[in-house]
Amino acid sequence: MLSTEPYWDAERETLDPKQRERVILERIQHQLAYGYDKLPFYRRLYDAHGFKPDHVRTLDDFTTKVPVVTKKMLVADQELHPPFGSYAGDVPDEQVTRIHGSSGTSGTPTFYRVSKRDWDRAAELGAMSFFAAGVRPDDICQIGFPFSLFFGGWGVLQGLERIGATCFPLGALESERQIELMHRLGSSFFSATVSYCQHLVTVAERVGVDLSEGPVKRLVIGAEAGASILASKRRLSDGWGADVHDAASTSEMYPFMTNIEIVPGEGMTVFNDEVFTEIVDRNDPNVPVPYGTTGAVVYTHLWRESQPMIRFWPGDASMMVDDPGTSGRTYPRLPQGILGRLDDMLVVRGVNVYPTAIEAGLREAEGIGAEYQIVVSRPGDMDELLLRAEISHELARELATLSEAARAERLQELKANAEERIRRRAQLRVPVELLEPGTMPETVFKAKRVVDLRQEAVVA
Amino acid sequence: MLSTEPYWDAERETLDPKQRERVILERIQHQLAYGYDKLPFYRRLYDAHGFKPDHVRTLDDFTTKVPVVTKKMLVADQELHPPFGSYAGDVPDEQVTRIHGSSGTSGTPTFYRVSKRDWDRAAELGAMSFFAAGVRPDDICQIGFPFSLFFGGWGVLQGLERIGATCFPLGALESERQIELMHRLGSSFFSATVSYCQHLVTVAERVGVDLSEGPVKRLVIGAEAGASILASKRRLSDGWGADVHDAASTSEMYPFMTNIEIVPGEGMTVFNDEVFTEIVDRNDPNVPVPYGTTGAVVYTHLWRESQPMIRFWPGDASMMVDDPGTSGRTYPRLPQGILGRLDDMLVVRGVNVYPTAIEAGLREAEGIGAEYQIVVSRPGDMDELLLRAEISHELARELATLSEAARAERLQELKANAEERIRRRAQLRVPVELLEPGTMPETVFKAKRVVDLRQEAVVA
Repeated sequence: MLSTEPYWDAERETLDPKQRERVILERIQHQLAYGYDKLPFYRRLYDAHGFKPDHVRTLDDFTTKVPVVTKKMLVADQELHPPFGSYAGDVPDEQVTRIHGSSGTSGTPTFYRVSKRDWDRAAELGAMSFFAAGVRPDDICQIGFPFSLFFGGWGVLQGLERIGATCFPLGALESERQIELMHRLGSSFFSATVSYCQHLVTVAERVGVDLSEGPVKRLVIGAEAGASILASKRRLSDGWGADVHDAASTSEMYPFMTNIEIVPGEGMTVFNDEVFTEIVDRNDPNVPVPYGTTGAVVYTHLWRESQPMIRFWPGDASMMVDDPGTSGRTYPRLPQGILGRLDDMLVVRGVNVYPTAIEAGLREAEGIGAEYQIVVSRPGDMDELLLRAEISHELARELATLSEAARAERLQELKANAEERIRRRAQLRVPVELLEPGTMPETVFKAKRVVDLRQEAVVA
Repeated sequence: MLSTEPYWDAERETLDPKQRERVILERIQHQLAYGYDKLPFYRRLYDAHGFKPDHVRTLDDFTTKVPVVTKKMLVADQELHPPFGSYAGDVPDEQVTRIHGSSGTSGTPTFYRVSKRDWDRAAELGAMSFFAAGVRPDDICQIGFPFSLFFGGWGVLQGLERIGATCFPLGALESERQIELMHRLGSSFFSATVSYCQHLVTVAERVGVDLSEGPVKRLVIGAEAGASILASKRRLSDGWGADVHDAASTSEMYPFMTNIEIVPGEGMTVFNDEVFTEIVDRNDPNVPVPYGTTGAVVYTHLWRESQPMIRFWPGDASMMVDDPGTSGRTYPRLPQGILGRLDDMLVVRGVNVYPTAIEAGLREAEGIGAEYQIVVSRPGDMDELLLRAEISHELARELATLSEAARAERLQELKANAEERIRRRAQLRVPVELLEPGTMPETVFKAKRVVDLRQEAVVA
């Protein structure tokens, strides 16, 4: 480890990008040859496309010539070659250290297999990533991701452990208890999903605790799109009195801490010498899009030997810039983080809109609580949206002191304000319906924000 | 690491006990001096008893002169010196790697603080212990302990990781899913509480899966008294088609894998060069009892720097023998494991009886399911027991084919058989009431087997 403050590995993190690109290309060529020679899954895929590893002589070749891998292909391959697929990796069983799996909530689960070498490398990457976000050995790090089949929390834990921070891995514990123990132990750091962090603010408010007066000084939030939305982050940052850092990848791409927001507000830095990350045309994965243009994300493991992903297509939308920002690292960035799932893109009255853009507007509006839903319906020929949002506990208390007429007036004013904020952010007029706090189910893991009634309409 | 099959650390595990005793005494003297010089909790305790570390020149001095520490004392000290007590250890915060806590279900929770050095040492001890019980790098190890505040599962995981086995830490996942994934991934090893392992047999039976035909070949069961009861183990062993190894200690005594059953049926080997273990008079912790006599357990950390326990009194009953058994290790053993909590001892018609002795009888009886309860009441001047036990699903199916008269007769016969088995084991006549399967709440973590109605009787 070459570590000079403020870097975990100064040489690696500040390398000239041109030099880094040479390493990346070399590793890509290595992984392509490994996949083709040793992993039947890739051999079949590449043969079907008439692709050979030696076709790749430049990074541009890689983007334009190599077919992508989708989640569906992995599920199908694991069904044919259980349990880990024919991309399991050229690793004997006794060198495998971990098994995890996807929750399977969105279909058939897939299983992950990690070799000891890959595991150790991931710990090092995790340490580099959390260290960049400001975690130090004297931090007390409370982790609110569940520790079970789902991979997320385990990767967070191992990075923090490697730094030498004090780890307090609570997992999926009851919310009030999370808050109580946080104060009792003096946790200086907290990590969980975006929606769970938002939820804890609501719970704290309900039990009369002000999180912004609490010990947590830093949040790393992940596993959902939208963490980089500035207004959402400002809300979280205010609610917790803490710096908020976005992190987002996907279980297939373990070590998933390769995308981390180092300077809050600048979006995620991409450690692309660990997982090479491309942004391509959402309709053609072999067409790159220029820096600064929104497209589809494609990820490649440069070092993994167990279940390496070569051009994995997670179905996420993002935008990359060349400018490394002010962190001192020389990597590219995703300044708006992950924008959402490609499938989540809504087309309303001819306008493309991601739910995250609507959230961005909502989070700027006054008097709004943590929970909201975007309802998509098709009453006639065209999609229509309705945004249902809870008001905050604070606003509810204020309203209770008003006369009925004054209350109605105040609500009308807030509704108009929210609609205007959304219109500015999303370039779309979306009617807003305000609800009492506690009306919607509370989110404790990942939020379900979009309710799609269009299918139902077709059936009826 | 000095490792020659079948030992993880052959030199350590086969050392001459006389030589080992010298190391133990030296470490005890070290820990006493450390406690007295650096940890206010011990300084106050020892001063109050007029004890000085240099009073201990032999192991016998240690037992007869050093006061014990109880859970109540730790709770009180943590209240006065939050959060970790004045026995937290002479370890700066940046060297602390983990925080865990007790569940607090039986009162105020206590918090555990582990230094990096202690953590690494515990991984090594865990590896030695699981290796002795037969775990090897090619095993797939599914862990069914929860991963949260509770310490248990984390210690299991780290020992298995150190061996280099494949870890599949599922934690508190739904039971049917545990069984499904076990078969899908081919888990060769499973670890959870005794009652959860029993519960899974019942669940498997209900969903039509025969666990004994499944991939699991070895169970390490722990965190509850009674795992060493031969009849219970035979049931588990038959139900799972697996070797069953008992392991039992307490969170205060992390690394808790110091008690492990190496040869099934021989009881637990005590790695007393890590945690020195004494059996003393249940009414006087400074009076040793001879090998082969039941008494109270007292534990001492020989190596821990963070929160070291010196003569900790967990309130458990056990019996130790000098004879190391057939495992090749030269350590003493607890041939019947942990017999139960000292508080659990029942006095019925002048006879002392541990609930585990009653369970031992019950587990030998025919047609009995996993769940049972011992109800203690005091209808008059004396305590009375009633044992309520579910019949097995298999028996229920058999009974369904019989006429009413034949069914009644069969049940009467099984009831008499169970009562006779218990009488032989516990030297006590206990009436048995048989219940339909599924009548009692299913046990998924630790079982509550004794229902005490005596307090209620006094109030009424």
